[in-house]
Amino acid sequence: MLRRIGVVDTTFSRVNMGSIAEMELRECGSGFRTLRRTVPGVKDLPVACKKLIEEDSCDIVIACGMPGKEAIDKVCAHEASQGIIQAQLMTNIHIVEVFVHMDEADNERELKKLAENRTREHARNAYLLLFKPEMLIRQAGTGQRQGFPDAGPVGEDERSTIVH
Amino acid sequence: MLRRIGVVDTTFSRVNMGSIAEMELRECGSGFRTLRRTVPGVKDLPVACKKLIEEDSCDIVIACGMPGKEAIDKVCAHEASQGIIQAQLMTNIHIVEVFVHMDEADNERELKKLAENRTREHARNAYLLLFKPEMLIRQAGTGQRQGFPDAGPVGEDERSTIVH
Amino acid sequence: MLRRIGVVDTTFSRVNMGSIAEMELRECGSGFRTLRRTVPGVKDLPVACKKLIEEDSCDIVIACGMPGKEAIDKVCAHEASQGIIQAQLMTNIHIVEVFVHMDEADNERELKKLAENRTREHARNAYLLLFKPEMLIRQAGTGQRQGFPDAGPVGEDERSTIVH
Amino acid sequence: MLRRIGVVDTTFSRVNMGSIAEMELRECGSGFRTLRRTVPGVKDLPVACKKLIEEDSCDIVIACGMPGKEAIDKVCAHEASQGIIQAQLMTNIHIVEVFVHMDEADNERELKKLAENRTREHARNAYLLLFKPEMLIRQAGTGQRQGFPDAGPVGEDERSTIVH
Amino acid sequence: MLRRIGVVDTTFSRVNMGSIAEMELRECGSGFRTLRRTVPGVKDLPVACKKLIEEDSCDIVIACGMPGKEAIDKVCAHEASQGIIQAQLMTNIHIVEVFVHMDEADNERELKKLAENRTREHARNAYLLLFKPEMLIRQAGTGQRQGFPDAGPVGEDERSTIVH
Repeated sequence: MLRRIGVVDTTFSRVNMGSIAEMELRECGSGFRTLRRTVPGVKDLPVACKKLIEEDSCDIVIACGMPGKEAIDKVCAHEASQGIIQAQLMTNIHIVEVFVHMDEADNERELKKLAENRTREHARNAYLLLFKPEMLIRQAGTGQRQGFPDAGPVGEDERSTIVH
Repeated sequence: MLRRIGVVDTTFSRVNMGSIAEMELRECGSGFRTLRRTVPGVKDLPVACKKLIEEDSCDIVIACGMPGKEAIDKVCAHEASQGIIQAQLMTNIHIVEVFVHMDEADNERELKKLAENRTREHARNAYLLLFKPEMLIRQAGTGQRQGFPDAGPVGEDERSTIVH
Repeated sequence: MLRRIGVVDTTFSRVNMGSIAEMELRECGSGFRTLRRTVPGVKDLPVACKKLIEEDSCDIVIACGMPGKEAIDKVCAHEASQGIIQAQLMTNIHIVEVFVHMDEADNERELKKLAENRTREHARNAYLLLFKPEMLIRQAGTGQRQGFPDAGPVGEDERSTIVH
Repeated sequence: MLRRIGVVDTTFSRVNMGSIAEMELRECGSGFRTLRRTVPGVKDLPVACKKLIEEDSCDIVIACGMPGKEAIDKVCAHEASQGIIQAQLMTNIHIVEVFVHMDEADNERELKKLAENRTREHARNAYLLLFKPEMLIRQAGTGQRQGFPDAGPVGEDERSTIVH
Repeated sequence: MLRRIGVVDTTFSRVNMGSIAEMELRECGSGFRTLRRTVPGVKDLPVACKKLIEEDSCDIVIACGMPGKEAIDKVCAHEASQGIIQAQLMTNIHIVEVFVHMDEADNERELKKLAENRTREHARNAYLLLFKPEMLIRQAGTGQRQGFPDAGPVGEDERSTIVH
C-alpha cells in the first residue's frame, strides 16, 4: 500500500520550506505520496501534524518552521517542540522537526541556503526513518549535522579541542 | 451544517479582544456562528477552549490574551501557551492563540492598535484554517506577521542583512 | 442539585488562604457547598484539585498557594501551575489558581493584605465562572487585577505611557 | 485492609534517604506496609513511583532525591518534578517529593542533617495525607518548612520585614 | 521468556553510543536480546523509545544522545528529557537516559572516554533495573556517578566542604 508522508510549514517563515521538502522527497524515491498543510506559526504545527497522522493516515510527518530571533520567538519554538514531541508520543509516529532560527544566519542569502539545505537533509532523514531505518544505524555516532558541515565522529585526532 | 467558532478572552486584558475577533469574523464570511467566553486570565484559557470544543462542539477556537510585562507574566503566558497546545492535541482541533504582550507597545495608543490588528489578522487565519486551508498553503514562506508589517519572503535582495 | 466548590491550600503558606476563600464564597451567594483540603506545598495542589473533581464531584476548584522568593520557589510555582492547567484539561473543569509570591509585598502586613484581597477576588471569579459566566464577558478587556488596583481598559488617554 | 506506602530513592544521592523515610514511617503509626525501590537518578523517579502505584497498589508514594549543584542538575530536578506531578495526575494518588539540593548546605554535616530532617518531616506529611488529612487543614497557612525552621504564620508583628 | 532491551542512539552524536551499550549489555549477562534503533537527534528519541516498548515489546530501553554545547542544544536536550519521562509514564517501562553534553569534556579524547564510560555504567543500571533491582537498593544514597568518579556517601569527614 502507498505510504503517506505529511509536510507542514508556516506562513510566518520567510522561505517556502514545505515546497523544498516536497521536492526533496520526490528525489528520494517512490512508494509514497505527500500531503501538504500550511499553518500560521510554529505553535500551530503540533496539532496540524497530529491531524495529518490521525485523520489523514500519514506514516511520518515533516514539520517545518522558522522561529524569529527575539526571546519571545525562542519561547514559541520551545513550546512548539514540546508539542511536536507530545504529538509523536500520542500517535507512535515520527515527526521530523525542521526548525531554522533566523539568527543562525548573518544575511538573507545565508538564511535561504541554510533553510534549503536543512530542509532537504531532514526530508531525507524522514524518508530513511520510514523506508530504510537500517541506513540510520550505519550513521550512528558519525556527527551528522543538517544544513551545516557534519561534525564527524570523534577519533581521528583525539587530542584536538572541540570546536563545534 | 453550521460550523462553530469559539472566541475566548480575558478580564485581565486592557482591550476587548474577544469582541474585535467576533467583529472580524463577521466580515470574513458566513456559514458559521460564534460562541463567546471570558475568563479571568491567560492561564484560564486552555480549559475554556477545550470546553468550547468538547462541550459546545466548536470546530476551531480563537484564544485571546494580553500578558503583562513582568517576568511572572511571561511565565504565565508560557504556561498558557503550553496548555493551549496540549488542548489542541487532546482534541485534534486548532486553537489560534492571539497574545499581545504589554511591552510590545510604547504607549496605550499603540497597544490598542496592535491588539486590534493582531486580533483581526488571526481571526482571519482561523477562518482560513476552517474554510479555506489551501489559501494558507499559497502564503507558505511569505513571512506573514500579525499586527506588524509582514517580513516578506527572503529573496528580493539576498545580500541584505536581516533586520526583523 | 447543590453544586460543589473545592478549596485547596497549603501548610507552606503563611496566610490561611483556604479559609479566606471559604469565607468569601459564603458572601457570594448560595446554591453550593464547599469542600476543603490542605496539602504541604504548591506542587501537591494539582493532584489534590483533580481528586476533588473526580472523587468528590466538585464543579470548580480554587487552588491557593504562597510560593517563596528564592529561584527554586519560582520553579516550584511554575511546575505547580503547569500541573494545575493539565488537571483542568484532563477533567474539563476550571481550577482558579490563587498564587501570592512572597516577594510581591515589602512587609508582612502588606503580604497578609495582598493574600486576603487576591484570594477574595479570585473566589468571586470562581463563583462567576460557575454561576454567572455572562458577568465575566461584560468585564472582558477591562484590565482587572486581583489584589492590586485594576489597570483598567486602554483608551481614556491614549497618549499616556504604560505604567503597570 | 493494610494500606501501602511506596518509598523510592536514588543511588545518586549521597544520603540514604529511602531508609530514613522508612524509619520515620514506622514511628508514625501502623496500618500500612512500605514498599521500597531505588533508581539511578531523579529522572528515573516518576515512572518508578507510577509503577508502585499501578503495579503494586500503593496508596501514596514518597519520592526522594538529591540533585547536584550544577545548572544541568537543576534542569534534571525540574524535569523530574514535572514528571512526578504528571504521574500523580495520571493516577489520582499523592506522591510526596523530597528533594534536597546539594547547594542548600555549606558542608557535608549540614547536608546530612538537612536530608534527614526534610525526609522525616515529609514522611510524616505523607502519613497525614493518607490517614489524617484533617490534621493538615489545621496547619493551613502556618508557614511550615521541611528541614529548616518553620516560617510561621504572618501576623505577630505585621510591620516586620520578610526575611525568609 | 527472553526479555527485550531496546537501545536507541543518534546520528548527531560523535560517538557510537548505541554500539557501546550493546557491547556492555552482552557483558552483563544473558536472558535477553537487544533491539537497536538510530534516529537523527535527541528530540527523535522519545517516540523511538515508545515504539520499541509498544510495537516491539521491549521491557526496558536505553536512550543515548550527545547534545551540543550551544544554548539551543541545551533546550533540545531538555525537551528530549521531558519526552523520555513522558514516554515512561505512558508505558510504565523504564527508559534509562544516557546523555553526554559536548561541553562536559575539554577535548575529543576525554569526550570519547566520558561517552564510553557513562554509556557502559548506565547500560549496567538498565540491566540491574530489569533483572536485579535489589542490587540498586543496596547502592541507595552512595553517591554513584556515571562516567565520572563516584561522589560517595556523606559521612567519613562530616566537616569537609562539598566539592562535587
